[in-house]
Amino acid sequence: MPKKETAIGIDIGGTNTIFGFTDREGNILAEECLKTAQYGTAEIFVSALYKKIQAAGEKIKEGVEIKGYGIGAPAGNINKGTIEHAAGLPWKGIVPFARIFHKYTNLPVIITNDANAAAVGEMVYGGAKGMKNFVVITLGTGLGSGFVVDGKLVYGHLGFAGEIGHTAIKPGLSGRVCGCGKKGCLETYVSATGLKRTLLKIMADSIEPSELRKLSFDKIDSKIICNAAKKGDPLATRAFKQTGQILGFKLADVVAHTNPEAIFLFGGLALAKDLILDPARESMEENLLGIYKGKVKLLESLLNTRNAAVLGASSLIWSNEKV
Amino acid sequence: MPKKETAIGIDIGGTNTIFGFTDREGNILAEECLKTAQYGTAEIFVSALYKKIQAAGEKIKEGVEIKGYGIGAPAGNINKGTIEHAAGLPWKGIVPFARIFHKYTNLPVIITNDANAAAVGEMVYGGAKGMKNFVVITLGTGLGSGFVVDGKLVYGHLGFAGEIGHTAIKPGLSGRVCGCGKKGCLETYVSATGLKRTLLKIMADSIEPSELRKLSFDKIDSKIICNAAKKGDPLATRAFKQTGQILGFKLADVVAHTNPEAIFLFGGLALAKDLILDPARESMEENLLGIYKGKVKLLESLLNTRNAAVLGASSLIWSNEKV
Repeated sequence: MPKKETAIGIDIGGTNTIFGFTDREGNILAEECLKTAQYGTAEIFVSALYKKIQAAGEKIKEGVEIKGYGIGAPAGNINKGTIEHAAGLPWKGIVPFARIFHKYTNLPVIITNDANAAAVGEMVYGGAKGMKNFVVITLGTGLGSGFVVDGKLVYGHLGFAGEIGHTAIKPGLSGRVCGCGKKGCLETYVSATGLKRTLLKIMADSIEPSELRKLSFDKIDSKIICNAAKKGDPLATRAFKQTGQILGFKLADVVAHTNPEAIFLFGGLALAKDLILDPARESMEENLLGIYKGKVKLLESLLNTRNAAVLGASSLIWSNEKV
Repeated sequence: MPKKETAIGIDIGGTNTIFGFTDREGNILAEECLKTAQYGTAEIFVSALYKKIQAAGEKIKEGVEIKGYGIGAPAGNINKGTIEHAAGLPWKGIVPFARIFHKYTNLPVIITNDANAAAVGEMVYGGAKGMKNFVVITLGTGLGSGFVVDGKLVYGHLGFAGEIGHTAIKPGLSGRVCGCGKKGCLETYVSATGLKRTLLKIMADSIEPSELRKLSFDKIDSKIICNAAKKGDPLATRAFKQTGQILGFKLADVVAHTNPEAIFLFGGLALAKDLILDPARESMEENLLGIYKGKVKLLESLLNTRNAAVLGASSLIWSNEKV
């Protein structure tokens, strides 16, 4: 019997790195995890990661044939195969990640940022199957985005396309301080952290009672705000509404630039579903030019599960084969 | 001797339609004009236009072989070959322009909006030769844009990509009323008309003397403001500065979405050169995420002459051959 063809999807995060063996249909045959920060250099990390992948592969009964390694990482640059100045990772500067990986294998090693990986995942396994023009917005601690135009990910001149999280919501370098050094970036409003900042503002401005007033800033997270909103907490509900409105406002720009068929929301905040989708949709429609009105779908990602990042990363290998 | 290969470039405007015979190097062998509004229906217009093109071709001594007809028109839709609800044109509704044209010829007839035609022109004949990722912004009465990603024009799902003129400069549906029915659209600030509106505001808010105070709103145009600014008129200078600043602010979004190598400004307002380019560049840089800073060129179009629209339209035929 021929061995099962699999692509390895690797999702590198600041705390955990998760990898999985994925088949062409998006089934994950095995998945394991290692602690990213435990390895002082990228060389030591890759050595441990590669060893762990091979060991995991041997445990899969039917036997697997690995077709390549797809990697989603913050600040991953597909053109150069590097991870460049990733704020959340232990390795500083420009890390030639694909080159290090190629010490161990001659198979394809494709690295890109996590939002781009999510977009390819949506195209290969998710709601964007068959779509040629769409955008995926990842809502986690920050806000990432991946643009697909004419069936291909947009990388742009330097490989850095799709950073709508750091577009400003108004002119004049005003608004909330962002980790990137600028002010008023979309991700300071629309992300798990942005939602919390908005909640705090609403809490300060209003006098309505709320269970959330008992919790410190550090204790509150988007899940807590989501649960409160579902129970009818007025502050939490308003925080979601404002977050969705600002998202919709900037999504109208995304539509005017690239006219996608659909925009998918992916990640923790998107799990709040209509709490964020409804106000975002309404605000996007309000801000759209007539020719686009009612013609762009705003949807939750079909991959919005815990395996999505691994699926997205592995899909880089399958989508690469077709080119 | 073989006949000279030419593409016909047709620039359809509300007042005039200009067409030209263009060779592969961007030389215009002949150029003529007809009055768009003189023809009550698109059928009558195309009949007259086609006849005039053939007559003009016969006058070219060396003889020409026409390879196709490229058309730039407001609201031109390349997917459907239509002109759809063009505000400035005499024919209402959805006009199946390419289909009408094909009654007379079996050669390729390619129609797109004027900003997209300008972008292809920049790629084929202008400053974007050899570039794979760039954006052209056309600054006329309104503001149009054409995005090129990976060597190809971005049309998007419905063929309407590249409408940054109708993205808003701040949230909340506030700001200047736009002809499109929305408020606060970029083109109400950044365009010949936008510049004039800004000048009027500055005139109202300040007490400085200016020659421009002698002129009515209807009399003032961007050329007059440009000449005044060059002579040091403080109001005109400030109007250009503010216009450039708002443009730069929104260009930072363009960069974050598609990471172009360069952005070209085309059209009347771009003839003001540094008056608009300098503040736009400064404001764009201020608003860019670190990874893009100093890496995106903001330039005047190399085609910024009177023939540019015809060149852009004709380039649709040459660029189509390569596909």
